[in-house]
Amino acid sequence: MTETRPMKTKRGSQVLGRGLALAVLCSSAGLAAAQSSVTIFGVMDVGVQRLSNGGKNLSLVSIDGMQTSRIGFRGTEDLGNGLSASFHLEGAVGPDVGSGGDWRRRATVSVSDKAAGEVRLGRDYVPTFWNISRFNAFGTNGVGAASNLVYGFDGASSTAKTVIRSDNSVGYFLPSNLGGIYGQAMMAAGEGSTGKYVGGRLGYAQGSLDVAGAWSETTNTAAGTKFKVGNLGGSYTVDAFKLLGLYHVSKQATREQTNWVLGGTYTQGAHVLRFSHVRSKNRDSANGSDYSGKLLALGYVYNLSKRSSIYATTSRVQNSATGKFLIPGGSAVLAGQSSTGTELGIYHSF
Amino acid sequence: MTETRPMKTKRGSQVLGRGLALAVLCSSAGLAAAQSSVTIFGVMDVGVQRLSNGGKNLSLVSIDGMQTSRIGFRGTEDLGNGLSASFHLEGAVGPDVGSGGDWRRRATVSVSDKAAGEVRLGRDYVPTFWNISRFNAFGTNGVGAASNLVYGFDGASSTAKTVIRSDNSVGYFLPSNLGGIYGQAMMAAGEGSTGKYVGGRLGYAQGSLDVAGAWSETTNTAAGTKFKVGNLGGSYTVDAFKLLGLYHVSKQATREQTNWVLGGTYTQGAHVLRFSHVRSKNRDSANGSDYSGKLLALGYVYNLSKRSSIYATTSRVQNSATGKFLIPGGSAVLAGQSSTGTELGIYHSF
Amino acid sequence: MTETRPMKTKRGSQVLGRGLALAVLCSSAGLAAAQSSVTIFGVMDVGVQRLSNGGKNLSLVSIDGMQTSRIGFRGTEDLGNGLSASFHLEGAVGPDVGSGGDWRRRATVSVSDKAAGEVRLGRDYVPTFWNISRFNAFGTNGVGAASNLVYGFDGASSTAKTVIRSDNSVGYFLPSNLGGIYGQAMMAAGEGSTGKYVGGRLGYAQGSLDVAGAWSETTNTAAGTKFKVGNLGGSYTVDAFKLLGLYHVSKQATREQTNWVLGGTYTQGAHVLRFSHVRSKNRDSANGSDYSGKLLALGYVYNLSKRSSIYATTSRVQNSATGKFLIPGGSAVLAGQSSTGTELGIYHSF
Repeated sequence: MTETRPMKTKRGSQVLGRGLALAVLCSSAGLAAAQSSVTIFGVMDVGVQRLSNGGKNLSLVSIDGMQTSRIGFRGTEDLGNGLSASFHLEGAVGPDVGSGGDWRRRATVSVSDKAAGEVRLGRDYVPTFWNISRFNAFGTNGVGAASNLVYGFDGASSTAKTVIRSDNSVGYFLPSNLGGIYGQAMMAAGEGSTGKYVGGRLGYAQGSLDVAGAWSETTNTAAGTKFKVGNLGGSYTVDAFKLLGLYHVSKQATREQTNWVLGGTYTQGAHVLRFSHVRSKNRDSANGSDYSGKLLALGYVYNLSKRSSIYATTSRVQNSATGKFLIPGGSAVLAGQSSTGTELGIYHSF
Repeated sequence: MTETRPMKTKRGSQVLGRGLALAVLCSSAGLAAAQSSVTIFGVMDVGVQRLSNGGKNLSLVSIDGMQTSRIGFRGTEDLGNGLSASFHLEGAVGPDVGSGGDWRRRATVSVSDKAAGEVRLGRDYVPTFWNISRFNAFGTNGVGAASNLVYGFDGASSTAKTVIRSDNSVGYFLPSNLGGIYGQAMMAAGEGSTGKYVGGRLGYAQGSLDVAGAWSETTNTAAGTKFKVGNLGGSYTVDAFKLLGLYHVSKQATREQTNWVLGGTYTQGAHVLRFSHVRSKNRDSANGSDYSGKLLALGYVYNLSKRSSIYATTSRVQNSATGKFLIPGGSAVLAGQSSTGTELGIYHSF
Repeated sequence: MTETRPMKTKRGSQVLGRGLALAVLCSSAGLAAAQSSVTIFGVMDVGVQRLSNGGKNLSLVSIDGMQTSRIGFRGTEDLGNGLSASFHLEGAVGPDVGSGGDWRRRATVSVSDKAAGEVRLGRDYVPTFWNISRFNAFGTNGVGAASNLVYGFDGASSTAKTVIRSDNSVGYFLPSNLGGIYGQAMMAAGEGSTGKYVGGRLGYAQGSLDVAGAWSETTNTAAGTKFKVGNLGGSYTVDAFKLLGLYHVSKQATREQTNWVLGGTYTQGAHVLRFSHVRSKNRDSANGSDYSGKLLALGYVYNLSKRSSIYATTSRVQNSATGKFLIPGGSAVLAGQSSTGTELGIYHSF
């Protein structure tokens, strides 16, 4: 038997918590829409950071050291017969300065079938992003993130609009009943200008193993130069240890960057240790430039709960003689200079 | 007897669904404020579209083919004795690019009395908008919308700031107990510059009939030129058929546009057919220009549920020799060219 | 015994109201996260205003006469042992024009301990703001607000970025178990440019008495000039009367402004009378300028409920021969001119 109690009355309209989602079903009426719901979710992640790029130091209140601060709304409507409609609206929040307001993390509407998969329309992550994010001990956040080097060229995600997400996308996702095989494909309309995207991802997750490969092409200029991305990553879990690896290549015209990432996590109760090592090689056949950089990161997370943590990360980027890889947020580095970042933060999800 | 069960716990704070709004009333305490609530609501509507304006074609991921994508919050407080206070905040969402963030669809606070009506302050729809929206088989959305021609002049809504909504408005709405008569009046402060608005709407809805007329004047320039709108519309429902008609006139200085709209819908279970025919005539006595355009649109909607649909619409705009009416979103047309649009989309409301 | 009933189903996802927050506890499972929740809250406040500055008059639809219109989300997670994590996101809304979208009123994440206090990171109010807000019959809103004169210099809050809030802040709050003593301290990183802030506030509230002092320094230019604020305020409640007083000084380089505020409220059932008198003196030793202004405000509030009110306020600012204090929103005043404002509005919180 289930029992209900009123919670204490307080100012403001209160939504039921993440840890307690409920429905009241009316036994005397067939409420077909009873499964429908809107979920409010988000992350707040703020810390303090010290960046040393070349000889220049900067202390700042930093954000997103564990995960990107955000707020979102999502919901699913059960249409019966294995069919459902759903939406997802999610926008970044900048708790350091109170910024926010758009839904540029994700804004999609979907129709899904349990057997046939999901069709998803709107602004969404590109398939090639997910391997960078998942097979990476620090995800794509903070001073230790491999993405500091891997994104685009020199870690600069601005070389194409589709390094992380794409506007105007039509996506398809395989259903979840394929015995561990998962995958997705995406096309995005260029709409008369740059940004036409086509890409896909295919993976296999079973027990302690998870591997996936992805590939994409983006028409990055009106002249038709393609920004091409390919990557292959995986993770393997042994007891408290999780090993993660990624191979990632970006190409455009005469430029090419190759990245190797190796990382791991060790979890003991509320304590998590993380490390990551990245090696990136950037070439431009047009001018013969050829340089490399590497990142070594070490982090500690203390989980106050499943939703809240305190974390500390330190990371160092070293460049070859002409390299200019760095941890973003501070000054630029001169060729060959190193970049160091250390941060301490509070992560809370809702 | 009502029974409650906890729903499965999931990440994120979950709000009760549209199909299932509930209150838990404490029988041992008189919770006077128990009627108060905040409702989260919205629409996500994304599709693919093909536009052919003159000889130029464009394929794009389109939005808002059925209804404008949006998110909103609203609530009502019962003050007793038939009196209530309420608020409404609603902003457009652009799921193609993840845009959003303001509340420019509507941002109002109201005090309502069941017998005396509602006073509403803030940014709101103008009275003259509602006839365009309601007496129109495609509402004001998508390639088939009559508003593509009707809004302002040549369908250009930018000629005055008050074609759809007005900032700084004070509105009054008749109560709902007048035997089918409904109506509203609005004034908006110009606040030292352009935009001073005054308008009203009066209608009658009973059984299968709904008719309404509306009129407005906006001071559209500092020099005092008035943008004037008048319209008269109605709908009549016979079984599965609904017929809709609208006569709409816009005037400013030497310009005048007259529009006739005739449309209909046919509903059979989950299937809805829609058609609309618009004839618009635009004159400017200052230069003797006098041209016309017509739109013919046909659409099909398959309702997956009350909240979710798949839809397809095709529409064609034809101009007289010097006309330049078009379906917005693509290239401009040269005088006399036609404009064609076809779209296929997913609509989901929450 | 507690009883549940389904509320009437309506369109949109409905969140439980401010007056009725609830949890359904599953008696057969220890839901440790049951205390977690997200609260939606906000204010909508719109009215009509008449401003007369010098000889120029302006009538407008005004906002925020009682409190600043806003929407926010907040939540607290109980971590056990007196520890909790919480977040707060709050952004201004402009219901006159439908503006909104950021979280610049407050965007913070906190870890709190019942015995040790709260550490709060993000964008937050500065400690020196709270005395202006609390020891003030009109708060900091509307034509009668003392802040019209007190903020910064000449009421101009733009002289430093930290008159009300600060980006990039790290704050500490005393726990609530110190026998009436309360307090907070804040530091904010300048992050290479202007805006480095340090400040604190200490108060004592017991029974009918509440007194607090606060002080801050902001590095306001790259050259290192400090914007300094100090204030001391208090309130004393005797039956239906509440008396409020504030002494506030702002200094930067050669400029200094001293303000005295005396106010009061009288509450009788749903009726509240408010009055406020402000005297401000502004000096600049660099050019010998020395002028003063005073504000006298009278207001009436009729509380429709705890959440909704109708209010009217009238206020007059008078300047000495070279003074230019004014009620913001209308024209500037010439030296020595007076400024008058009257407003009538609807306030609703949710």
